[in-house]
Amino acid sequence: MKKLRELAVDETFELFALIKTADVRTARNGKKFIAFTFQDTSGTIDGKYWDAGEDEISRFTAGKVVLLGGKRELYQNMPQVKILHLRLAKPGEPGEPSLYMERAPVKPADMAEEINQLLFDITNAKWQRIVRHLLSKYQKDFFSYPAAKTLHHAFAGGLAYHTVTMLHLARGICDEYPELNRSLLYAGIILHDLGKVVELSGPMSTEYTLAGNLLGHIVIADEEISKACTELKIDESDEEVLVLKHVILAHHGQLEYGSPVRPKIMEAEVLHIIDNLDASIQMMLGALKQVQPGEYTDRIFGMDNRNFYLPNL
Amino acid sequence: MKKLRELAVDETFELFALIKTADVRTARNGKKFIAFTFQDTSGTIDGKYWDAGEDEISRFTAGKVVLLGGKRELYQNMPQVKILHLRLAKPGEPGEPSLYMERAPVKPADMAEEINQLLFDITNAKWQRIVRHLLSKYQKDFFSYPAAKTLHHAFAGGLAYHTVTMLHLARGICDEYPELNRSLLYAGIILHDLGKVVELSGPMSTEYTLAGNLLGHIVIADEEISKACTELKIDESDEEVLVLKHVILAHHGQLEYGSPVRPKIMEAEVLHIIDNLDASIQMMLGALKQVQPGEYTDRIFGMDNRNFYLPNL
Amino acid sequence: MKKLRELAVDETFELFALIKTADVRTARNGKKFIAFTFQDTSGTIDGKYWDAGEDEISRFTAGKVVLLGGKRELYQNMPQVKILHLRLAKPGEPGEPSLYMERAPVKPADMAEEINQLLFDITNAKWQRIVRHLLSKYQKDFFSYPAAKTLHHAFAGGLAYHTVTMLHLARGICDEYPELNRSLLYAGIILHDLGKVVELSGPMSTEYTLAGNLLGHIVIADEEISKACTELKIDESDEEVLVLKHVILAHHGQLEYGSPVRPKIMEAEVLHIIDNLDASIQMMLGALKQVQPGEYTDRIFGMDNRNFYLPNL
Amino acid sequence: MKKLRELAVDETFELFALIKTADVRTARNGKKFIAFTFQDTSGTIDGKYWDAGEDEISRFTAGKVVLLGGKRELYQNMPQVKILHLRLAKPGEPGEPSLYMERAPVKPADMAEEINQLLFDITNAKWQRIVRHLLSKYQKDFFSYPAAKTLHHAFAGGLAYHTVTMLHLARGICDEYPELNRSLLYAGIILHDLGKVVELSGPMSTEYTLAGNLLGHIVIADEEISKACTELKIDESDEEVLVLKHVILAHHGQLEYGSPVRPKIMEAEVLHIIDNLDASIQMMLGALKQVQPGEYTDRIFGMDNRNFYLPNL
Amino acid sequence: MKKLRELAVDETFELFALIKTADVRTARNGKKFIAFTFQDTSGTIDGKYWDAGEDEISRFTAGKVVLLGGKRELYQNMPQVKILHLRLAKPGEPGEPSLYMERAPVKPADMAEEINQLLFDITNAKWQRIVRHLLSKYQKDFFSYPAAKTLHHAFAGGLAYHTVTMLHLARGICDEYPELNRSLLYAGIILHDLGKVVELSGPMSTEYTLAGNLLGHIVIADEEISKACTELKIDESDEEVLVLKHVILAHHGQLEYGSPVRPKIMEAEVLHIIDNLDASIQMMLGALKQVQPGEYTDRIFGMDNRNFYLPNL
Amino acid sequence: MKKLRELAVDETFELFALIKTADVRTARNGKKFIAFTFQDTSGTIDGKYWDAGEDEISRFTAGKVVLLGGKRELYQNMPQVKILHLRLAKPGEPGEPSLYMERAPVKPADMAEEINQLLFDITNAKWQRIVRHLLSKYQKDFFSYPAAKTLHHAFAGGLAYHTVTMLHLARGICDEYPELNRSLLYAGIILHDLGKVVELSGPMSTEYTLAGNLLGHIVIADEEISKACTELKIDESDEEVLVLKHVILAHHGQLEYGSPVRPKIMEAEVLHIIDNLDASIQMMLGALKQVQPGEYTDRIFGMDNRNFYLPNL
Repeated sequence: MKKLRELAVDETFELFALIKTADVRTARNGKKFIAFTFQDTSGTIDGKYWDAGEDEISRFTAGKVVLLGGKRELYQNMPQVKILHLRLAKPGEPGEPSLYMERAPVKPADMAEEINQLLFDITNAKWQRIVRHLLSKYQKDFFSYPAAKTLHHAFAGGLAYHTVTMLHLARGICDEYPELNRSLLYAGIILHDLGKVVELSGPMSTEYTLAGNLLGHIVIADEEISKACTELKIDESDEEVLVLKHVILAHHGQLEYGSPVRPKIMEAEVLHIIDNLDASIQMMLGALKQVQPGEYTDRIFGMDNRNFYLPNL
Repeated sequence: MKKLRELAVDETFELFALIKTADVRTARNGKKFIAFTFQDTSGTIDGKYWDAGEDEISRFTAGKVVLLGGKRELYQNMPQVKILHLRLAKPGEPGEPSLYMERAPVKPADMAEEINQLLFDITNAKWQRIVRHLLSKYQKDFFSYPAAKTLHHAFAGGLAYHTVTMLHLARGICDEYPELNRSLLYAGIILHDLGKVVELSGPMSTEYTLAGNLLGHIVIADEEISKACTELKIDESDEEVLVLKHVILAHHGQLEYGSPVRPKIMEAEVLHIIDNLDASIQMMLGALKQVQPGEYTDRIFGMDNRNFYLPNL
Repeated sequence: MKKLRELAVDETFELFALIKTADVRTARNGKKFIAFTFQDTSGTIDGKYWDAGEDEISRFTAGKVVLLGGKRELYQNMPQVKILHLRLAKPGEPGEPSLYMERAPVKPADMAEEINQLLFDITNAKWQRIVRHLLSKYQKDFFSYPAAKTLHHAFAGGLAYHTVTMLHLARGICDEYPELNRSLLYAGIILHDLGKVVELSGPMSTEYTLAGNLLGHIVIADEEISKACTELKIDESDEEVLVLKHVILAHHGQLEYGSPVRPKIMEAEVLHIIDNLDASIQMMLGALKQVQPGEYTDRIFGMDNRNFYLPNL
Repeated sequence: MKKLRELAVDETFELFALIKTADVRTARNGKKFIAFTFQDTSGTIDGKYWDAGEDEISRFTAGKVVLLGGKRELYQNMPQVKILHLRLAKPGEPGEPSLYMERAPVKPADMAEEINQLLFDITNAKWQRIVRHLLSKYQKDFFSYPAAKTLHHAFAGGLAYHTVTMLHLARGICDEYPELNRSLLYAGIILHDLGKVVELSGPMSTEYTLAGNLLGHIVIADEEISKACTELKIDESDEEVLVLKHVILAHHGQLEYGSPVRPKIMEAEVLHIIDNLDASIQMMLGALKQVQPGEYTDRIFGMDNRNFYLPNL
Repeated sequence: MKKLRELAVDETFELFALIKTADVRTARNGKKFIAFTFQDTSGTIDGKYWDAGEDEISRFTAGKVVLLGGKRELYQNMPQVKILHLRLAKPGEPGEPSLYMERAPVKPADMAEEINQLLFDITNAKWQRIVRHLLSKYQKDFFSYPAAKTLHHAFAGGLAYHTVTMLHLARGICDEYPELNRSLLYAGIILHDLGKVVELSGPMSTEYTLAGNLLGHIVIADEEISKACTELKIDESDEEVLVLKHVILAHHGQLEYGSPVRPKIMEAEVLHIIDNLDASIQMMLGALKQVQPGEYTDRIFGMDNRNFYLPNL
Repeated sequence: MKKLRELAVDETFELFALIKTADVRTARNGKKFIAFTFQDTSGTIDGKYWDAGEDEISRFTAGKVVLLGGKRELYQNMPQVKILHLRLAKPGEPGEPSLYMERAPVKPADMAEEINQLLFDITNAKWQRIVRHLLSKYQKDFFSYPAAKTLHHAFAGGLAYHTVTMLHLARGICDEYPELNRSLLYAGIILHDLGKVVELSGPMSTEYTLAGNLLGHIVIADEEISKACTELKIDESDEEVLVLKHVILAHHGQLEYGSPVRPKIMEAEVLHIIDNLDASIQMMLGALKQVQPGEYTDRIFGMDNRNFYLPNL
């Protein structure tokens, strides 16, 4: 069975997909229709369901898995689906929504195992205890949340995947520059985006929470370290704690990107560059996957709205 | 007895002053000299003490009160003192450093009394308890600290004075716009710069602390509210707490001025404008006090480096 | 009778409204239709009139009051009206356009009275004469014009209402800082936006005039002061006149917002902050009125395109 | 007799020069000295007069012509004069200050004659009358003022010289693009900087006047056109007048450079570019005159602080 | 026979036009349609061809000349064509695409002749040889290419026309400032945009080439001068060559506009200003041609998105 | 024998050092003195040589090695040397200037060997040939030049050392992201700063050459690839060549940092980030080496003028 983004133009198909969004609107003729976005692991595609009755409107809602029969078309140069028939998945059919969402390419358990190994390289006792405490507190969410709503790593498990990749990069960089404090860099990387488990609503239909909008994940992470210190009876005014907090607070690199302080410690600057490196590569890879050699990608919002070329090599 | 900034050029004088800074340097002839900045409530003035011996270097240090005899001169258009004689204040003489430092024009006790009265207007119970808790925790420092190292309200008691003035302004503004939440605005104003009692080292020889440099007073205040909630058994994820924290976090108005989030609540925006209004007026008043009608002030760093004109009216 | 923005989705209604705009377009089927924006004091709503004949096109034009029968719907999440029937208001029906336009919440006569009282606080004779002269010259327009085409105070009487509110704020601020020149601040506030009576076309269907586009209201107000001086035989090169003109010219605060000079006098800076304070609060209040507690407003163009949250308090 | 900037290092000399500035200061030994800047048509040079008595201080003031005997030295890589003797010019000696100031390379009478000729190309009667009126009103100052205090054309007659050069450039550009309104461009050029006769204090020791600081030459010129209309009984609200004013108001091209409106008429944009072209070339020529082929100039403040290279060609 | 942009609203017509673009899309009813842009020397207009069959889709493609019968309409205030009938131009009919494209108002041969004459004013032998070599190498393309894809001079012959106009302007400017090196300015102008013959795909359906996207016309021109030197056996490290290259590299004036170096030689700065002058005037003239006196143009992207007013004079 | 920056304040010493700069100036008493900067591998220090005779001035010039006897002092908080005696190094003494200059911590031969090994990973034949050709052409300079005049890697061998470090980082990053084209990244890194062998004057007293100032190392490297293609008979318009050139041209990442094009290929973006990472770490390490734990560094120009804190860990 083909997936949504593997279909050719004008191809007729039938496949299972997740309803990502379902907006009910009124057409010019006064009748209701549903504007769907369907999703599976290959990506998303839009389609309109005309003359929708009230029962259909209440049945086909976001988060449901459906059997979709249709034809793949182009509308203003964008792929869309002409819906020919539509029903909910039945018992015995693959109706678990998580089957249709993009996921990190590594399993949560494997990422957890790898982070556990790298924890041994955090030789500073206070940092180690704080990191273990917070990983344990948010264990489940940390390995299931995305790292963003729409930008890079916006998929289930993306938060942990982004973290693990950054740890790999940091390992190589610490090998090259022995002056870097490896413990600080590792601890900072593991905690830098942990506030997203409070800032975002979860892996599906991800939205910003009220706390996310009013405080932001940077401040949330800082508060979490404070609370961990209280519970672990670590003095918050210790220089080691201040330095760890600083590395988190400064990781966006510049005030205009939302860090309340700019990096004032070498490891804070390096963490920021590693974060930027992984985010940039993920955004470029995501866009380049959609094109053929010799083509240009769409403009990427998070990369200053630039587009990229995939060379014929 | 005249004060330092009341002397005429070429006037000979003797007066008590505080040594604000004392830098030991080596002259071209190889001998040591001390470059002093003297201070009293009229302002500061520089003077050099040539051929300083080791005992003098160890005796005349920052924070000491001295009897200074000298002559007021001009050096490259800047006032300076030619030191004729210098000795430490003796017992029985006015040797208390705080006598020579600029102070808020209102007494700490009066400011405390006024804030206490205004607390009754905070009708939200959680905000009231948090504010009372933190005022009580930092009672002494809150009424003695300056509001800045060098910019506006950089004098003992400046933090509380700035807070009280902002409350006055907020009272009038809430009267004009009944839609504003007076409780939130008052609570936010009282706490907005409270983190400075940790960010700065104190009322004399004010410097940034390590926590000040690495976290900043905005994040410090946010952490203090978190801790107050823990001690007062208030749930930190309550919307009332999120909203109060937001008002503090956003009070610099723009990310590039160090707020990790921009105002997303009306009262946060208004608090930011009131803060800016009082700071601007204080900086302008400070500079205009130094000039005569028909003259221009020096450029003011905190006002985009503009200078101002005092009209002949 | 309900008003336009008080209707529930799918509610059928009949009410009087003003045609704010009426654009004639051609549908895909080749027939003409009219795209209306209807307005009453509750706000505006769009609706399309299909298959419009030439007589209907000439009858239903902007500025007419109509009896509108229809059904309130949602189109792409925006409220719209499905027009069921439409006719012009008849004699005897409430057909005066001004009944349907947003108005300042205070009557022109009351605002005039209040300004008259405050004029007594302008103790400088020249400023007082200039202000009285110009208020008298533009009496009618000053109390009927909006303060803007689309941003804040974009309603009949908005110019005077904005002015009066700023005077209230200035009164409180002058009470707090006795060093401020109250006369200058009041005179400056009254004149600061007076050039808008030339810059804008009037209270209905407000557009920029050619003079508005080519000169702008700041320069227009400056010219008006010059002319007033000529008529009142006040020497324009007097420092008092220069200072008053400066306060007007500088009131946008920064060159990039259209002031040809930045504030160089304390009262000019304060006037700019008060102007910004009232404009910001009006824009936020306008947007917050449209939402329920717990919701976010639309993005507000004049507030750096930010949206705001209405807390559940 | 050599001039100030023609002297070789270590050369002893005697020549007449103008005292441009004379600051009295106190040396470390407690005695007064005068820090002079001397000027002649070759440029300026600094020199210190040690142990100055009160009579010398009152005799050697800015604006006096002196006979200076001295030795040309280098101090921290900057040329300076070691003063050997100094006296005021006597009757019969060349004691007219204007002999020592930089001047436009064309005589005022020749510039006036040329502008008079070009006036015939202004075929619009209103513009012609306004221009003639204002040229006549400020005849003397217009041909003797500099165009700036320190940037380009900062010399006696610089204002008219800059204007004439721009007219030459405009003539060629209008020949190339017949769509341009030659009358409007010529009238706009002649008036664009005329406000400087009020903004600046005069050709010697040029400073900004109070009107210059508080209003700026752009607004001053606009007011002058208004007044000319009143006197000439031209209706100020005529489109021709609005357009002429706009060309003046917009000539700095961007709001952040002090124009209250950006160019909205083609000729306004072209005038701005011509102004920028002449100013840039004058600044570059001035700096390049000081260096030899193969050398770089000092950084030029008005050219974004860039330096320029004089090629070996 | 009228042209496309000369038609009145609702006028029925038949005329020959070029298909500039032809996008095939699917309508809501599932049928294909072609969204055309037609072009002739008067400008362009859009039109939709409903229910397009496969043969029509393959026949009516970009670059074909057609006989178009239709009705001129307005759609959302933009002109469009309702297509009544459409067929390809037959043999014997005016089917040459170039007949329908905008062209420079001067013939290529005349421009070539004029440039040849001006070459005699390049008195530096190396510059003359390099310029002649490159003009000869790209002779055909230089006189047929546009100067841009969509901004100014985006028509056949626009590259040469822009160059010749700049030479005219430079001639007048060099006459005014004899210090300018006329040879360098002329040589620089002729070569400054020559890289566009590689950067762009050609005079029809102009697109950026891969080299254009990856290198840009500025670097391409620099490489061309290097190659010319190799072929002409001129030492590339000669100062004359460095200076010529610099003038080309710096002609966008600022780094953020794509010049790898800012102008460091007076002629480079002047060339940049002349380039900007001609481009600005062309963009304004193009927009002003579309409106009547008393109207405003559309916003012009290349002029900071400003619109312009055509005065009633 | 201690080195220059290892001396304690007031310590008397004698050691060999290189004269880095020697400026001759005139003191207030009319006598000449030499303002020296001395250098050895520990850093630099200033010192003044009073009453310098002509023979001393001609003997003690930049580039000479001297035996310096003196006393280490503080002048305005900056270390300086009081010169007690000074003579040129004699035959038999360590008089080779390169002994006193900072050097890369790895030997040129070792760096060359390592680059040679990594060349085998460039599997694209054209890139491999171009890289080998240019490395061979500039072999000597590539391994002896600094990477900058004053910013990061401003020491002999710095260019190659920066290159090798970037290759190490790239190796780890390519291991993490297999989608990256390792050949392109390695080839791009080796060539990205190679233009500096033309842009800079050499390892000692490094200055910008005329070609460096007028073209810049980015364009110079592009030209070198063009020339290599000519000599190697590789078609320059091949996509492989365009892509390699692009990676070089875009490596400053943004137009305002001097790249004529922004990265449009993933490897170009990654190269830019790696370049920035190594440069940033080198600048921070250089500054942190000068301070003790608990201290702040001086502000670093190349890091947005920030200072950094060395934690007490």
